[in-house]
Amino acid sequence: MPSISIKGANMPESPIRKLVPFAEKAYKANKKVYHLNIGQPDIKSPQIAMDAVSSHHLEILAYTRSEGSEPYRKKIAAYYHRNNIMVDENELIVTTGGSEALLFAMGSIADVGDEIIIPEPFYANYNGFATASGVTIVPVISKIEDNFALPPISEFEKLITPKTKAILICNPGNPTGYLYSQEEIETLAAIVKKHDLFLVADEVYREFAYDNLKHFSILEAKGLEDNAIIIDSVSKRYSMCGARIGCLVSKNKSVIKTALKFAQARLSPPTFAQIASEAALETPQSYFDEVIEEYKGRRDILIEKLEEIPGVQVGHPKGAFYCIAQLPVKNSDAFAQWLLEEFDLDGETIMVAPAAGFYSSPGVGLNQIRIAYVLNKESLIKAVNILKAALKEYKD
Amino acid sequence: MPSISIKGANMPESPIRKLVPFAEKAYKANKKVYHLNIGQPDIKSPQIAMDAVSSHHLEILAYTRSEGSEPYRKKIAAYYHRNNIMVDENELIVTTGGSEALLFAMGSIADVGDEIIIPEPFYANYNGFATASGVTIVPVISKIEDNFALPPISEFEKLITPKTKAILICNPGNPTGYLYSQEEIETLAAIVKKHDLFLVADEVYREFAYDNLKHFSILEAKGLEDNAIIIDSVSKRYSMCGARIGCLVSKNKSVIKTALKFAQARLSPPTFAQIASEAALETPQSYFDEVIEEYKGRRDILIEKLEEIPGVQVGHPKGAFYCIAQLPVKNSDAFAQWLLEEFDLDGETIMVAPAAGFYSSPGVGLNQIRIAYVLNKESLIKAVNILKAALKEYKD
Repeated sequence: MPSISIKGANMPESPIRKLVPFAEKAYKANKKVYHLNIGQPDIKSPQIAMDAVSSHHLEILAYTRSEGSEPYRKKIAAYYHRNNIMVDENELIVTTGGSEALLFAMGSIADVGDEIIIPEPFYANYNGFATASGVTIVPVISKIEDNFALPPISEFEKLITPKTKAILICNPGNPTGYLYSQEEIETLAAIVKKHDLFLVADEVYREFAYDNLKHFSILEAKGLEDNAIIIDSVSKRYSMCGARIGCLVSKNKSVIKTALKFAQARLSPPTFAQIASEAALETPQSYFDEVIEEYKGRRDILIEKLEEIPGVQVGHPKGAFYCIAQLPVKNSDAFAQWLLEEFDLDGETIMVAPAAGFYSSPGVGLNQIRIAYVLNKESLIKAVNILKAALKEYKD
Repeated sequence: MPSISIKGANMPESPIRKLVPFAEKAYKANKKVYHLNIGQPDIKSPQIAMDAVSSHHLEILAYTRSEGSEPYRKKIAAYYHRNNIMVDENELIVTTGGSEALLFAMGSIADVGDEIIIPEPFYANYNGFATASGVTIVPVISKIEDNFALPPISEFEKLITPKTKAILICNPGNPTGYLYSQEEIETLAAIVKKHDLFLVADEVYREFAYDNLKHFSILEAKGLEDNAIIIDSVSKRYSMCGARIGCLVSKNKSVIKTALKFAQARLSPPTFAQIASEAALETPQSYFDEVIEEYKGRRDILIEKLEEIPGVQVGHPKGAFYCIAQLPVKNSDAFAQWLLEEFDLDGETIMVAPAAGFYSSPGVGLNQIRIAYVLNKESLIKAVNILKAALKEYKD
């Protein structure tokens, strides 16, 4: 029998997937499971986007241009202008989700064996894209005690080698909810310019900034035009995860020219999803105001309730809709499994994402979990009560 | 300024893209351009598929499962059963186009530096996926004089090294239109089994077989279960290129398990497109009968007219909707550009795909072009007349 490649065998499994069989066991036992483990929001997609697809008049579902349809790209550029990101329609490529934008970015800037430095904990699928691209992720640890702020420059500089091609951040952060300040972005800008690196920023949660804080994009940093690559997506912004539309943005012409060759090889991003995404750009501000208000309320109640549990330490998210909680357990993987397999509170339990999968340093984050606050407040309160009761009962 | 990677710089440009600026020049000069260069059919998508999307009732455009929605996968399995390919819904992964299925296959079975043997001329974007995956394509030449039939086994065996992981075929072939016989598939099956290789077959044109010939899938070959990987797509079958839905099929559990990890990293295939593709499976046979009849008619008139041109040699396609024509020119790249830039017949010209881009051996196919018969018969006849007049006038 022919053999699977080492690359394939090394593809990491998502930290959540491992728990799926145990979740299925919980369903079979008729337990109600509150899902704190996934980034699939319960928020409705904008009606204007859903209606645009319902009222399509396509007779031939044809390819669009590989870089995305021109009218859509022009509207994306206008959206960026409104967000103080001064790019035109030729400085962006529409991709199949933020995922593909990341693959294109890694393929364009890094060869096999090259290194990308990422503050950890980081979005677990970065590991998968790196493995698929043959790129090595070099983690720099950010700490829950510092609320996951940017590690000191010296920590980055220690890790830079001739193989380093980029620093990659997620801002606001999945899984930390940390929102980098303008000063932090400018610090990163200075490092990458000094060492001739790219700064790749996954800004898919741009709109989800709370406490009157404003997201500061890497393309707002002065003089970073040649170094900056933004990864973007409609998935969370419009609660349209199933669209699979994202975008890669750069003012560096070589980056766009190269990424476009990757885009051309796969022909085009999905057409219906571009129709939805183009219409979504007309979503009224009131939609975001309501959504942000809702998430902020959820975050407040979640953090408050978590901090009431003895032994639990929580990062204070300022953006996105995740937080990392440190639990009084030795191994959150085993705990998460136990929650599904063994525990219930009046027939109900919770599914959480063990945080070790968001670290690439071995042995770090073993007592942490990621919580996605994609449930309504009432459910969140119930879920945290279940966590509290479970921690009381659980023996490591 | 940070530098683009060698991988990125090595990504090939599609043989058609290079001509786009010259096509734009032709439009500006108010020439009518007949497009023989692209695989975008002019056939309408099945109404049932378009209607399924119009009548969607989604409130949240959510992720589906990474391997594709279960009801859709079950229906795909039933479609395969009708085609004598005995797989179930767990032996296939829904992908974002056939392109992604190929990427997943290459990532799963080949490491950086591994080799895949492909009869050339082959679909040009295989080069792009190979570069992105760090895989080396080893071509084995099939000849227009043999109508692009399978080269002798000995030619394959000469090329097999310890790094060889697979043989990849496209059946029926883009760009040749060649349809492999059952005997040829069984010959390939014997080679891959003997050398413990995978046989990857891009069968996206399965339905497009003419002259009462029947497509024989690699999964119909006895005893090939562990070696066979099918790449599939709805793009051509239902004229839904813009859906971006394909699928990877294998009865080898390691292949599916590994490819699924690639699928999980990118979360899910597009949701609206899955709705369309699921509904498309209900397309009545009459749709295909009409489409096949139409393509067959186009092929017949195209080949007949091409063979009337002095000095032109044509491969006789038995499937898909392409053919390779050998022209009395030295360099079809320059000729294709000249057609757009310099030539017109009563204000009309044609755009063709120079075939050199479909070969990976340097210097081969320089005097060939690929013609896609995705225009109606009347337009095809006009287009071939233009080619005839152009060849009369053209000086190399």
